[in-house]
Amino acid sequence: MLQFTVHHTAGQARRGTLTLNHGRIDTPQFMPVGTYGTVKGITPDGLKAAGAQIILGNTFHLWLRPGLDVVRQFGGLHRFIGWDAPILTDSGGFQVWSLGAMRKISEEGVRFASPVNGDKLFLTPEVSMQIQTVLGSDIVMQFDECTPYDVDRAGQKHITTEAEARESMELSLRWAARCKAEFARLENPNALFGIVQGGMFEPLRDASLDGLAALDLPGYAIGGLSVGEPKDDMLRLLRHTAPRLPAHKPRYLMGVGTPEDLVDGVSAGIDLFDCVMPTRNARNGHLFTRFGDLRIRNARFKQDERPLDDTCTCATCRQFSRAYLHHLDRCGEMLFGMLATTHNLHYYLQLMRGMRTALDAEAFDAFVAQFHADRARGV
Amino acid sequence: MLQFTVHHTAGQARRGTLTLNHGRIDTPQFMPVGTYGTVKGITPDGLKAAGAQIILGNTFHLWLRPGLDVVRQFGGLHRFIGWDAPILTDSGGFQVWSLGAMRKISEEGVRFASPVNGDKLFLTPEVSMQIQTVLGSDIVMQFDECTPYDVDRAGQKHITTEAEARESMELSLRWAARCKAEFARLENPNALFGIVQGGMFEPLRDASLDGLAALDLPGYAIGGLSVGEPKDDMLRLLRHTAPRLPAHKPRYLMGVGTPEDLVDGVSAGIDLFDCVMPTRNARNGHLFTRFGDLRIRNARFKQDERPLDDTCTCATCRQFSRAYLHHLDRCGEMLFGMLATTHNLHYYLQLMRGMRTALDAEAFDAFVAQFHADRARGV
Ligand SMILES: [Zn+2]
Ligand SMILES: [Zn+2]
Repeated sequence: MLQFTVHHTAGQARRGTLTLNHGRIDTPQFMPVGTYGTVKGITPDGLKAAGAQIILGNTFHLWLRPGLDVVRQFGGLHRFIGWDAPILTDSGGFQVWSLGAMRKISEEGVRFASPVNGDKLFLTPEVSMQIQTVLGSDIVMQFDECTPYDVDRAGQKHITTEAEARESMELSLRWAARCKAEFARLENPNALFGIVQGGMFEPLRDASLDGLAALDLPGYAIGGLSVGEPKDDMLRLLRHTAPRLPAHKPRYLMGVGTPEDLVDGVSAGIDLFDCVMPTRNARNGHLFTRFGDLRIRNARFKQDERPLDDTCTCATCRQFSRAYLHHLDRCGEMLFGMLATTHNLHYYLQLMRGMRTALDAEAFDAFVAQFHADRARGV
Repeated sequence: MLQFTVHHTAGQARRGTLTLNHGRIDTPQFMPVGTYGTVKGITPDGLKAAGAQIILGNTFHLWLRPGLDVVRQFGGLHRFIGWDAPILTDSGGFQVWSLGAMRKISEEGVRFASPVNGDKLFLTPEVSMQIQTVLGSDIVMQFDECTPYDVDRAGQKHITTEAEARESMELSLRWAARCKAEFARLENPNALFGIVQGGMFEPLRDASLDGLAALDLPGYAIGGLSVGEPKDDMLRLLRHTAPRLPAHKPRYLMGVGTPEDLVDGVSAGIDLFDCVMPTRNARNGHLFTRFGDLRIRNARFKQDERPLDDTCTCATCRQFSRAYLHHLDRCGEMLFGMLATTHNLHYYLQLMRGMRTALDAEAFDAFVAQFHADRARGV
C-alpha cells in the first residue's frame, strides 16, 4: 500500500506525508543507502537517532549475499536486518549495468557472471520483481536500463546520442510494463515505482514520462542523472522533468547528491532522495556541515578543539572535537568512520527536516537563501 | 589518589571498591583496551552501556599519535577522547619491547626508531612518567622490561634462563625506583603501580615482589604472563604470585585473557584485568558466550535465527540473529565489528559482574562451577 498527501507547496517544492506498509514518512525525505542490509558504520538505532525514516537496500547485492533462501526464512529484509521502518529496494539494474563488459543486455534481460562466485545469472524484469517480493521492501523499483551519459565502445568514448538514449529508454518502458504485470501476478502488497529515463534529452524524458504515466504506478523516480554529466545538464533535466511527474504521487530523484543538490531537488518538486555520498564521504574524511565541507585529514584540524559544527546536535558534535576526529582518522580507527557517518547522516537528515519545517512555515525561499549563505561561510 | 577497600573474600578471591581521581570501580573488574584513545569499534557511550568502568590507554602509541602537544592542549586524555571515568595507562615498556630488533635496551632506557615516522626516540622510566602525567591517567604503570618466555638470539631460540630472567627483573626493579622518584617530582596526583616480573621462576617473582613492596606503591601488577608460556606455567606463577601481593592494595594481572583466565585470576586474588582478546577476537569473528565460543564464519550459522547467546542482554543479542551477523562478517561490513565488539565486551564485563555478585552473595564456588558447566555446554 501507498498513500501520499501533499500538505503545502512553495513554487514547485512540496511538503507531504507518505504512508507505506511499514510506516509513515515525512517528505521531502532522504534515504540512507544500506547496500548489504546495513548502512555502513551505523546501527539501526543510530539511524533512528539521526532521524532516518526509510532506508534503501540493493536488490542486486542482497540477491547474491545473503541470498533469497536466508531472507525468505526471516520473512523478508526488515526482520533479517532489524529495521522495522520502511525500506526501498532498487531493481538491480544499476548494479548489473555497472558490471560493464561482464554483462550482456537483451530484450529479455541481463546475463552476467556473479562477481561473488562466478555463477551465471540472468536478471530480468520478472526476476527483479520476484527478488524484491522476497525482500518485502515497501517501495519496489522497476527494472530498468540506466542510460549512461557517455559510452566507451571499442575504446572510443562518446556522449550518448539521442538515438541511443531513445532505444535505451524504450527498452526501460517495455520492462516497466513487464514489471507491473509480474508485480501484480505475485500479489506483492507494496508499491511499485516507475523510473523515467531518456538521458539528457527533454523530448525523451517526456516520452518516458508519458509511457510510465499510462501504467498508473503509485510513484515515479527520475533515473539516469548524476551519472557523469555536467551539473548544468543535471539541473536542466531535473527542472524539466520533476514538475511534469504526476503531482499527486511521490517523486524520487535517484542517487543524488550533495546538500546543494537536495535543495535544488526539493525546489524542483522532488520528495525522495538517496545517495551514498554522506556515508561514503564520511569514511573518507569528507564531512558536510552547515557552514561548508571539511576535510578532516587537513593538518589545520590537528589541535582544533571545536566540534565539526557547533550548531549540530548529533552525538558526534555533542561529544567530540575536530582534533580527536583528525586523530582517529589518522590512526585508521573504526570509531572515525562511525562518528563521521553519524554526523554526515544527521546533517543530511536535518537539512531535509529544515526544508520540511520551512515549507510548513511558508518560509522556504528564506530557508534556501540562508542555506546558501551558511554553506558559503566556511568552517 | 587511590582508595581501596576489600569487602568480602572467598578463598583468595576478593570483592572490593577502588576509588580513583575520575571515579569508583567495583572490583574484580575488566578494563577494555583503547590503544589510540579509542576502544576499537565502540563509542564511549557504548562502553558505558556494556558496563565498562575503566579503560586502558597505550602510552607508547599515544605518545606517537596524537602526541603530547595535542593531549596537553586538551588537559589530558579524558577530555581528548571523551571518557570521564578512570583510565589506566601502561608504561610503553611492552610496546618498545615488541619492536624487536628495532630497539636497544640499556640501563638508562630504550632507544628506538618511531614506527610512525622513523624519528629516533628514547624512552626511559622518567620519560614514561612524564608522558603518563600529561595523559593524566588515574593509574600510571611503572616502566619495566617485560621478561620474554623465550628469546631468539642469532637465530637460536631458547626459553629464558633463570639468570636472564633475574637480570631483566632486577633492571625493572631499578626502573621502578626511578619511576617512583620521577612520579613524585612531577607531583602527579594519580596512582603509580609497580609490576612484578621474574619470568617463570617463583624465587624471582618473590624477589621482585619484595623489592617493589619496599617502595610502598599504591597498587601492584603481575607482568610477563600470557607471553607465550604453556597455560600450566601461567597458572602456576599466577597462583604463586597473586596471593603474595599486598592484601590491602589492588592487584592487576596484565594482558590476560580468556573467560576461563579471568575466573582463574579472580580465584587467585586478582582485582583488575585487561586484554585485547574480546575486542580483537570480535573483529575476527570469534565470539565469546556463556555457552562456549562461536566462530561466526562457520556455515552452520548462515540461517541460524537465534541470537549469539539467548541469555545475553547486550544490544547485539537483543536485536540481531547469528544469520545476520554471519552475513555482515561475510560482506566485510563495519557493522559486524561494531556488533561483535559490543557483545564480547558485554560478555566479559557481565562475567566480572557475575563474579562480583557471587562474591557479595558468598556463592563464589557455586558460580565458578556453573561457569565451567555452562561454557562446556556448547553453543
Ligand atoms: Zn554533527
Ligand atoms: Zn550479546
